[in-house]
Amino acid sequence: MSNDRPVASGVAGEEAIIQGFLAPLAVGFPGAFGLQDDCALLTPEAGTDLVLKTDPVAEGVHFLPDDGPGDVAWKALAVNVSDLAAKGAIPIGYLMALSFPAPPTSQWLAAFAQGLAEAQQKFGCHLIGGDTDRRPGPITVSITVVGSVPTGSMVRRNTARAGDAVFVSGTLGDASLGLLLRRNPRLAATWGLAAAEGEHLRRRYVRPEPRLGLGDALRRNSASAMDISDGLAKDLTRMCNASGCGAQVRLADLPLSSAAAKALSADAKLAMAIAAGGDDYEILACVASAKASDFVAVARQAEVVMTRIGTLTRERAVIFEGTDGLAASFPASGWDHF
Amino acid sequence: MSNDRPVASGVAGEEAIIQGFLAPLAVGFPGAFGLQDDCALLTPEAGTDLVLKTDPVAEGVHFLPDDGPGDVAWKALAVNVSDLAAKGAIPIGYLMALSFPAPPTSQWLAAFAQGLAEAQQKFGCHLIGGDTDRRPGPITVSITVVGSVPTGSMVRRNTARAGDAVFVSGTLGDASLGLLLRRNPRLAATWGLAAAEGEHLRRRYVRPEPRLGLGDALRRNSASAMDISDGLAKDLTRMCNASGCGAQVRLADLPLSSAAAKALSADAKLAMAIAAGGDDYEILACVASAKASDFVAVARQAEVVMTRIGTLTRERAVIFEGTDGLAASFPASGWDHF
Repeated sequence: MSNDRPVASGVAGEEAIIQGFLAPLAVGFPGAFGLQDDCALLTPEAGTDLVLKTDPVAEGVHFLPDDGPGDVAWKALAVNVSDLAAKGAIPIGYLMALSFPAPPTSQWLAAFAQGLAEAQQKFGCHLIGGDTDRRPGPITVSITVVGSVPTGSMVRRNTARAGDAVFVSGTLGDASLGLLLRRNPRLAATWGLAAAEGEHLRRRYVRPEPRLGLGDALRRNSASAMDISDGLAKDLTRMCNASGCGAQVRLADLPLSSAAAKALSADAKLAMAIAAGGDDYEILACVASAKASDFVAVARQAEVVMTRIGTLTRERAVIFEGTDGLAASFPASGWDHF
Repeated sequence: MSNDRPVASGVAGEEAIIQGFLAPLAVGFPGAFGLQDDCALLTPEAGTDLVLKTDPVAEGVHFLPDDGPGDVAWKALAVNVSDLAAKGAIPIGYLMALSFPAPPTSQWLAAFAQGLAEAQQKFGCHLIGGDTDRRPGPITVSITVVGSVPTGSMVRRNTARAGDAVFVSGTLGDASLGLLLRRNPRLAATWGLAAAEGEHLRRRYVRPEPRLGLGDALRRNSASAMDISDGLAKDLTRMCNASGCGAQVRLADLPLSSAAAKALSADAKLAMAIAAGGDDYEILACVASAKASDFVAVARQAEVVMTRIGTLTRERAVIFEGTDGLAASFPASGWDHF
């Protein structure tokens, strides 16, 4: 690093942040060396491949300035682990580079570390290395996660074929409705939601739960899969483009939580937020028809409900059939970063 | 990702950046899937451990706004690979998250990708995955590198012992003098440098070369080692703290390039920039005295010159003995990020 800046005496120095708040997250993983060496060491288990992903999140772009630090931490790890889940992998560890425009408070750091502790316990992995620095711009949490799959079994996104059944896990749209609610809490009344229903939607936005239970079902049935981070419409289009096919999906078949169903019945225009909104981190999976029932059964053993929403087609267009029987179209389907 | 931002039509969309400029950097690594899947796949070689590191660089903090994009790219990868080199590891691949406050031009991207191509060819690794997004703040290049060592042979920083000989590779201070020159080109005349000498110093700052050749020497002699990124004074202190010892170093023994020696003879105060300035990415290694000559010989076979600069001590202080025989002190020794 360049030596052109004076050493600032912030609320917390780099070593104080690492040893005071982050090192406890590395306990239990010998190759993290208590975050006191230059690199992390990982001894791969025989018979496994490693699966790697990096997806940073930044304040004002991927999370809101008034999100709780614990929620920010959870989500930063969850969005990366969700990609592993879609590939049939389980997480082992993660490296994290944190940057702050100004030294964070002890309170912020403690809540952030607590959110990470909860997430890594839930997902079964450890912090194994990282970096902390100060720079202008938004608070940024850059996580790189490392997972493993049995050798040769990583699930791809480009192996879907015309005729495959299209499935999604859980329910769709909760997170984007949760985000709308966060911005305008009065919508809860407009939509006729009970307090618990509003809280369900909000929680789905701030604490997404990667579908790690789905690995067996995905690998065993040679599914193609990816997680739905940028909205079903966009992510299904990506999978179809990668696989050289199209899809026909019925909007009426999209699985909804009771809260989302209530909101949709109060405002039919929310169909867009449900089909094209991001942040659900559910899994989109395509499976040969002959394997569909086994796929659903194995997923159910892991307590993941898979819902068939359509079929892949030879024709390379992704068509959403509305409840009125007409094809629905989605302008600029989903989220792009530029 | 949140769905709250309109899709911008920048100079280059996310897919255009990835497929147009970055995917060529993944050619030759099957598990990168042409950067078209959600995750990268790495099949570890039997008998190896993996070594991982993440160290992001940001404009205005780690590089200058007028640095060439190719130099920025080279350095972003080099600073990570340098950590692997110090651990006795060789790089396999890297994930890279790029963020821009505004869509980059094709020209910028082409030069950036060219710098990465040169670096990864020199270091022997590939781009295997990543992410590109747009956010406020400086341009940021967040690289996570994955390397390998023979099982059980990663070189640590906390295994140094009192009595060990302290070595550094190559020459020290070139990069920090190069940075001074970049800021004030007239210093070249003050220091009496020939054009080639000034260029040498500048190049050491913008194109550091990780000491990958040193792996055999480090592993074979059970050395403790780390790279010198934040300056000798600070990094030696870190190694001594980790190992529970101190050090006695003679400033007169620090290895200098002819350019740095000329500058120092013109301005004795530059001793500080040499001993405490960062960015050299040389290797600091401590070796038991009995193994010192073998260590130097094996390093020389790899064309790396190691110079002994001092000895580790029981007393837990790091003392630099000046050319006048008095102990030199370094206020705020080196660079801290907070």
